[in-house]
Amino acid sequence: MRIVFQQELGEVQSRLVTLANEAKTIMEKASKAFLDSDVAMADEALALTDANEERALDLDELVIKVLATQSPVARDLRILVSALRMSASLERMGSLASHIAAIARYRYPGSAIPASLRPVFEEMSRIDIELAGKAANLLENTDLDLAREIQARDEAVDMLHRKVFDVVLAPDWSENAMFTVDVTLASRYFERFADHVVDISAKVSFLQTGEWQDNG
Amino acid sequence: MRIVFQQELGEVQSRLVTLANEAKTIMEKASKAFLDSDVAMADEALALTDANEERALDLDELVIKVLATQSPVARDLRILVSALRMSASLERMGSLASHIAAIARYRYPGSAIPASLRPVFEEMSRIDIELAGKAANLLENTDLDLAREIQARDEAVDMLHRKVFDVVLAPDWSENAMFTVDVTLASRYFERFADHVVDISAKVSFLQTGEWQDNG
Repeated sequence: MRIVFQQELGEVQSRLVTLANEAKTIMEKASKAFLDSDVAMADEALALTDANEERALDLDELVIKVLATQSPVARDLRILVSALRMSASLERMGSLASHIAAIARYRYPGSAIPASLRPVFEEMSRIDIELAGKAANLLENTDLDLAREIQARDEAVDMLHRKVFDVVLAPDWSENAMFTVDVTLASRYFERFADHVVDISAKVSFLQTGEWQDNG
Repeated sequence: MRIVFQQELGEVQSRLVTLANEAKTIMEKASKAFLDSDVAMADEALALTDANEERALDLDELVIKVLATQSPVARDLRILVSALRMSASLERMGSLASHIAAIARYRYPGSAIPASLRPVFEEMSRIDIELAGKAANLLENTDLDLAREIQARDEAVDMLHRKVFDVVLAPDWSENAMFTVDVTLASRYFERFADHVVDISAKVSFLQTGEWQDNG
């Protein structure tokens, strides 16, 4: 029974890693769509998002099956409950990236980003993609140094998010309301995407150490 | 054992109802803060949000305890897993409302809403408050007529959300970027708040009927 349980836990873990890698791929495609007004990339991101939702639902069903058949307690139970939450975060990360792709699609063939904000969004998307990769690594290796790096990188995203508003609210911002709306929402989606990685990393740290990090 | 379990399930249910009622109260205060530039109300909303987060964490711990001690299967297990998710949604609803309060606080003593959008936001906040009340009722009585009403009211919120963008993106929109940013984000928060009520109602319906509604 214990061996079966360990195999099932391993399966849950490997599916979480897949979900994280998929969220990364969706963000890569969504970022390219958004930065380069690439509508084909936007469509690919949107299609992968649907597949990722299915994958998250399947994982939840697996967790419920393991809960029902193994009746885990203590740390094993907490791992499975955390898996449900991490699955929800990873699904949400895919959705947030797909919203970015949808903005690009909506504005095509125009761009959703004015030139003044391009470097900020390039940096924000680069860090989000990196964070999704770190989430996949962390879920695979539970290396707590990664959890600390994730925390620091999230702070960089928060700073870029504030930077977007600094630019938009400065007296010399002269772009039209459409740009203002697009960059406001996109920046929010990039920021929330990073938040979910922090949530995941806090859960992994908690399972390893029994203590919530400050970022908890 | 069964009687204890039923008592514990009853406790989980009653705490979900409390969380929903608190989310409603936070939205009431946040809406008043936002619509009337009432900074005292904003502070009350922000304080209640912290308390609601604690309450959601406590509920999660109770659910984990029940899972560990009762090893439920089948529908009982699904109820508890759903309770974890509904707790997350209700906590998130509080956070979203608190973001609306934070916008009001940030712009005080000015208003975050231009006159042209006031009626739209009044209506959106009215429906969100109503939806949170319906969520509390649904969690208490599992009345599936309520689930259908919730679906319809969420569509009304989605329409108002689109209406905000119609106004902001119309050629005669002459408000500054600050208003554009504020109403874009606030509208998004109101819309997400309603989405969470739909998620909750889909879960309650699923537990009652074994079938996912289209809104699932």
